[in-house]
Amino acid sequence: MLTSKILLATQREAPADAEIISHQLMLKAGLVRKLASGIYTWLPTGLRVLRKVEAIVREEMDKAGAQEILMSGVQPAELWQESGRWEEYGPELLRLSDRHGREFCLGPTHEEVITDLVRREIRSYKQLPANFYQIQTKFRDEIRPRFGIMRAREFLMKDAYSFHLDEASLQQTYEDMFECYSTIFNRIGLVFRAVIADSGSIGGNTSHEFHVLADSGEDQIVFTEDGNYAANIELAAAVKPEGERAEPSEDMQKQATPGMHSIEEIAGHFKVDESKCLKTLIVDGANDDLVALIIRGDHELNKVKAEKLENVARPLSFASADKIRKHLSCDIGSLGPIELDIPTIVDFSAAHISDFICGANENGMHFTGVNWQRDLAEPDCADLRNVIAGEAAKENGAPLKLARGIEVGHIFQLGTKYSAAMKANCLDEKGTATTFMMGCYGIGISRIVAAAIEQNHDEKGIVWPQSISPYSLVLIPIHMHKSQRLREAVMALYEQFSAAGIDVLLDDRKERPGVMFADMELIGIPHRLVFSERGLDANTLEYKGRTDEESSDINLDEAVSFIQKQLASG
Amino acid sequence: MLTSKILLATQREAPADAEIISHQLMLKAGLVRKLASGIYTWLPTGLRVLRKVEAIVREEMDKAGAQEILMSGVQPAELWQESGRWEEYGPELLRLSDRHGREFCLGPTHEEVITDLVRREIRSYKQLPANFYQIQTKFRDEIRPRFGIMRAREFLMKDAYSFHLDEASLQQTYEDMFECYSTIFNRIGLVFRAVIADSGSIGGNTSHEFHVLADSGEDQIVFTEDGNYAANIELAAAVKPEGERAEPSEDMQKQATPGMHSIEEIAGHFKVDESKCLKTLIVDGANDDLVALIIRGDHELNKVKAEKLENVARPLSFASADKIRKHLSCDIGSLGPIELDIPTIVDFSAAHISDFICGANENGMHFTGVNWQRDLAEPDCADLRNVIAGEAAKENGAPLKLARGIEVGHIFQLGTKYSAAMKANCLDEKGTATTFMMGCYGIGISRIVAAAIEQNHDEKGIVWPQSISPYSLVLIPIHMHKSQRLREAVMALYEQFSAAGIDVLLDDRKERPGVMFADMELIGIPHRLVFSERGLDANTLEYKGRTDEESSDINLDEAVSFIQKQLASG
Repeated sequence: MLTSKILLATQREAPADAEIISHQLMLKAGLVRKLASGIYTWLPTGLRVLRKVEAIVREEMDKAGAQEILMSGVQPAELWQESGRWEEYGPELLRLSDRHGREFCLGPTHEEVITDLVRREIRSYKQLPANFYQIQTKFRDEIRPRFGIMRAREFLMKDAYSFHLDEASLQQTYEDMFECYSTIFNRIGLVFRAVIADSGSIGGNTSHEFHVLADSGEDQIVFTEDGNYAANIELAAAVKPEGERAEPSEDMQKQATPGMHSIEEIAGHFKVDESKCLKTLIVDGANDDLVALIIRGDHELNKVKAEKLENVARPLSFASADKIRKHLSCDIGSLGPIELDIPTIVDFSAAHISDFICGANENGMHFTGVNWQRDLAEPDCADLRNVIAGEAAKENGAPLKLARGIEVGHIFQLGTKYSAAMKANCLDEKGTATTFMMGCYGIGISRIVAAAIEQNHDEKGIVWPQSISPYSLVLIPIHMHKSQRLREAVMALYEQFSAAGIDVLLDDRKERPGVMFADMELIGIPHRLVFSERGLDANTLEYKGRTDEESSDINLDEAVSFIQKQLASG
Repeated sequence: MLTSKILLATQREAPADAEIISHQLMLKAGLVRKLASGIYTWLPTGLRVLRKVEAIVREEMDKAGAQEILMSGVQPAELWQESGRWEEYGPELLRLSDRHGREFCLGPTHEEVITDLVRREIRSYKQLPANFYQIQTKFRDEIRPRFGIMRAREFLMKDAYSFHLDEASLQQTYEDMFECYSTIFNRIGLVFRAVIADSGSIGGNTSHEFHVLADSGEDQIVFTEDGNYAANIELAAAVKPEGERAEPSEDMQKQATPGMHSIEEIAGHFKVDESKCLKTLIVDGANDDLVALIIRGDHELNKVKAEKLENVARPLSFASADKIRKHLSCDIGSLGPIELDIPTIVDFSAAHISDFICGANENGMHFTGVNWQRDLAEPDCADLRNVIAGEAAKENGAPLKLARGIEVGHIFQLGTKYSAAMKANCLDEKGTATTFMMGCYGIGISRIVAAAIEQNHDEKGIVWPQSISPYSLVLIPIHMHKSQRLREAVMALYEQFSAAGIDVLLDDRKERPGVMFADMELIGIPHRLVFSERGLDANTLEYKGRTDEESSDINLDEAVSFIQKQLASG
């Protein structure tokens, strides 16, 4: 391809609302343009990347025995009513009516449609297991789309759905998909981890997320160095503190803490570690009441763990300041467990400290030297907090590491959640009608593009993994428009590269070399060859890999084999 | 691929609402399933066909220098308001609101989105001409979706949009696209014609449609044998009758025609040819009035020609029976031009006859022996009728042929319709801001699948053009499950075909041979090889092309080269 023949659309600046680096670079490198909030147009360079990701995913899904189909974007309401999700699914489900007033939605996921198809088409165990996938445009009406295509409303997804008559078969396909996903992310060249995950509202029991590691990731994941345990922090169990709680050594005192609201302020004021303070969080209860959740001042509440408590409202919602003031007669910064007249659950670690500080449920007042059992009753305990780096994994005792990840894949064992609701069954070997067991397996195709950039960039721009780079190689001639001889040499080599099946881009713009270098580094093409009159005289080209410090001269006649070697080793 | 690994989903019957053969065969061959009115799921076999069509279109568009991009399905209302189409476009535009109450539509076409992109990104004549295309899912809320995917609501389309600073450049790209489309339909292997077409509501001046010829086609096209003229019948001009009108030879008489309403009944009653009767059609006028359009009894009204008349309402609508009765005091079967008190336009042919019959504007009464000038004034004339087979083309005098076609492509010169409304311009060589000239070019990817079947089928099922067949070759072993030796031979050859890059399907189901033969003929795979124990003994396979009368034996060892030759010559 010649740069003069495509809309390159590189630009020096990204708009201020592009908060994360992938969003900035995708705009600057001319990969996408925003059409509306969370809705993007893929420009020629960006679409090449998207298609390469898509091709890898398709190849590996085919190899794993999945069958590609294509379902519609617009789905009839009736199916969602049958599964119960028409009511359950929140405003992220974009609902619409056709000209006859019939209700539809724009599909954010396709469990209902595939279950309907399979209950009609698969009648016998002989046709099982079956795993159907599609690569299709989805719509999810995010309340606050952001981070560019990372959290867009319209996006490209690979979703797959498997059908089985027993657990063992589901487990087998689930493991196959786990392998397939690992192969996909390895082939693309991403550093990723598969972690145990919460299956959330989609239902089912077992699930794993696949995260591309990147500092900007919205998710926090934890894992042990030995590779035997990895989980989304939402799911990682904290070990209960061992040994006896220390004996009280201080008297309880009520002290004035005017204008202090945060743990940091309180700990600073009393010159103690934050771990000696209690953090009291008030959430809405399951029965229109309030519940207090108490953790150590240096810990963070784990929302998924909290949400699983019986008397807590789901989804988790923090009580409003007004509601707290009305029911507890004090403000958020002065809460504590003493004489707190609502159900209270205390994290195991918070229940293990002595001589602690907590709010006095009176504005501007705290207690110090507080001790469980002596000053207030032994609490009801639960695991409420996020694990922290260095502590022992509950599973194998190895020290935990933390990292941030971008979720690019998610696999679930759904069980019979959808098939039972939609009466989807088929005959087993004995002729008995049996409800399908189901699995579902998603990959965010467009999100992978952004995640790859988050993980692979430098101050000059994108550093594509070779597998998904829009072009493998760029040819940059210096002042080609002034030299017939140079032009001919460049075009001849361009043809050779094309004939060798190499994705080559020739920058034939009448631009200064510096502009061309900067654009091609911004776009992130892995290999670069520079042509000059001087080089031609010496029968050489200047080669530079995208992350090389220096360029090196290569023999003009060996250019194709040289690049082929680079591509093979990359 | 093995049939045991895919959802084959063939069935003996198609539902009664599948009116046309392609719809019936797509259901019976397991290519698609209906999800809702005009909304379909593509099953594995069907999707393979769709993807092959898509790949051919993509390759040829790339070769023609068009740049692939991907725009969104959901489009903001603002852009459609800017172009004026938010109001103009009828209920086929599916409108919706997001969770914040902002208005969007599901794009049936993308002129607005691409014009918005280009006005932001292209600033200089140096970046022109540019031609952007996408292969993307569209939605058009048809009032009465039918004919399966032929007239679906959600469908796959290739749409392209070109931008220019002058007519000559637009003309050049238009011609390139004309060539490109011809290459695409030739490569697919379809019998088609490119015809001059009405540019309709999309605007612009010049346009051509590409029609796949098939008896079930909704469009009628006309062409001269010499290949120098082809048009949609909507656009084909009728030649004015030559010579003088014959002199009157009969007296005008008013005669009773009780219960006769059609031209056929009247002509039969008076024992004259239908060409001696006038057909008087009442349509709504442009100013809330009525207009009479008169043609010969043996002719058909051409709606596009009628719609272009100044005093006729657009879109053309026939006046209701009630309205006619109220304003003209008689019913539809008895209308005529004599003493008709509304604007009347007469087709040239109808104005050229003498001694004709027409309604008397009195129920159950007709006039015979009527003559223009003598019995009523010379009429206002226009070309109002469809041309008929055999008459001379206005363009070159050659005799016209008629055929039915399925529109699968349409190219338009839009001019500045969208760019002017949306203030899309860029700097020309002199630095002057100039409004873009635009062209647009569509291909119905999913419709091609149906059109190919309409043109290529027999009583057994589909007869795919080789280029888009889901598989090139099927291997059918007879009782493979009873013979280890046969199974090994079949698998070995299956691997050889796969290794040779041939799209091969192996029917490994435990079915009777007759069932497998029938299914594979229904699905329409072009080449078939049958394996049997007896054949192995003789080192032969039985070959049969999809439309061959008889099968023939081929040498087992030469099977791959034999099939490669068949594919190369097909």
